[in-house]
Amino acid sequence: MRGGTAVSIAYQTLRLSDLPGLRAAIRSGDYVKHTAGLGAGHLQTNLAILPEAYALDFMRYCQRNPKPCPLVGVSDTGDPMMRTLGRDIDIRTDVPAYNIYLDGKLADSVTDITDIWRDDMVAFALGCSFTFERALEEAGVPQWHIDHDTTVPMFRSNIETVPAGPFGGKMVVSMRMIAPERIDEVREISRRFPLAHGAPVHIGDPEGLGIADLSRPDWGDPAEIEPGKTPVFWACGVTPQVAIERAGVPLCITHKPGHMLVTDISETAEVPVLNPKHH
Amino acid sequence: MRGGTAVSIAYQTLRLSDLPGLRAAIRSGDYVKHTAGLGAGHLQTNLAILPEAYALDFMRYCQRNPKPCPLVGVSDTGDPMMRTLGRDIDIRTDVPAYNIYLDGKLADSVTDITDIWRDDMVAFALGCSFTFERALEEAGVPQWHIDHDTTVPMFRSNIETVPAGPFGGKMVVSMRMIAPERIDEVREISRRFPLAHGAPVHIGDPEGLGIADLSRPDWGDPAEIEPGKTPVFWACGVTPQVAIERAGVPLCITHKPGHMLVTDISETAEVPVLNPKHH
Repeated sequence: MRGGTAVSIAYQTLRLSDLPGLRAAIRSGDYVKHTAGLGAGHLQTNLAILPEAYALDFMRYCQRNPKPCPLVGVSDTGDPMMRTLGRDIDIRTDVPAYNIYLDGKLADSVTDITDIWRDDMVAFALGCSFTFERALEEAGVPQWHIDHDTTVPMFRSNIETVPAGPFGGKMVVSMRMIAPERIDEVREISRRFPLAHGAPVHIGDPEGLGIADLSRPDWGDPAEIEPGKTPVFWACGVTPQVAIERAGVPLCITHKPGHMLVTDISETAEVPVLNPKHH
Repeated sequence: MRGGTAVSIAYQTLRLSDLPGLRAAIRSGDYVKHTAGLGAGHLQTNLAILPEAYALDFMRYCQRNPKPCPLVGVSDTGDPMMRTLGRDIDIRTDVPAYNIYLDGKLADSVTDITDIWRDDMVAFALGCSFTFERALEEAGVPQWHIDHDTTVPMFRSNIETVPAGPFGGKMVVSMRMIAPERIDEVREISRRFPLAHGAPVHIGDPEGLGIADLSRPDWGDPAEIEPGKTPVFWACGVTPQVAIERAGVPLCITHKPGHMLVTDISETAEVPVLNPKHH
């Protein structure tokens, strides 16, 4: 498992293998690293926290771009508890690391935002690729970045997102090399997870997406361009971060990439909403 | 097809079988009846138009209750064009009939809202059951209300929706009698349409939902309680209408039940967003 060895050496006294232990370790600040492979089958999410004045437009942006921005949870204004995603999730403490953007520029990275949370804040949780990556792993589809414990390569594509208010810009895509004979299966598996980017947005020819050099990603680490395999591109959760930077929102807080919110929701739940009855 | 005969007699000079003809007939006011079976495989939606002051809470309500309130499109504030759902959809004219609610009470039904549209309005399109009903029909699963050209029976259940701001209340459910040996198949088929209420919320025993008498629906027409079949209940698009009534929104406009917005989006599209590239 990606990160498994490093995690077990550095944090061998922490109980990370179950959800309550992981949540407690993150909340206390004892665990501040990435969450890939952790969480025992629970939905992990990207995070964007914005002032309410931007919330309606940002929510419209997510609705109009459901593949890069699959909305899985929204807090009440000023309420730091993500009530539909867990019984006791405090968004100010329960993510391992946060990035703080001022006027659209990365200003700081912290492990707790209790002191900067405000009464006009709205927290948005967005589905992430860990969900379909796990499904591909279970189907025995190798993914280079997982096998080599690196971050998936991501590229700015030439696909325009559908704008909403100040939010817009190009879609960011992640790339995985897939054996041609497994592409249909990979498409079907990932399509089953509409709240985790769904089916690929492009298969083959990087130039069709305006990507000049597959070995030089805009984010993440380069992955080997494996001979005989085809590059397959998915909509990526970095897209809303780019849209937020472009919009120049005065104050925005996101997760630090890879350092996700781990929810109480099962990855296989039909809807990402905690509701004791009939859901 | 439900309504087919009545439609062809009353409107035999109108061209309703293709989307442009149907859209033109609705826009001109020549077609003001229900849209069941029309639209040639395009996504049909429920409609709720609210002042912007209520839009963020209503959108949160939809996000938290995706089975009764599957959000498929949201207009910009004051813009009557549903740009992500079609190339030329004007929400003021392109629905056959509208209900107008004042302070949460039904005040009027009209066929055009051009004169009451305001610059602070936001239009929400919500997925409807026509989509999965068509899929069930194609799989050869009989549905009594379709075969008898009636409206599906709907009931107020005891399931609490997840509240957001002033919006909340009980979930409304629709009921279809299904042969026991086909229930697994029916569940799988409808689960494939998360933007059209998804899988059933309850199977069997109406009392489990607080429904005392299956022959007396709260909305729609009674359906025959077919011996040997099992009542199966789905989340229903009347739920947000009840939430809006309960919230006492000063002005709200909805579609008249059964009189849907017919979009340009295919019922089988992965995402309900018109985008020329890669979607």
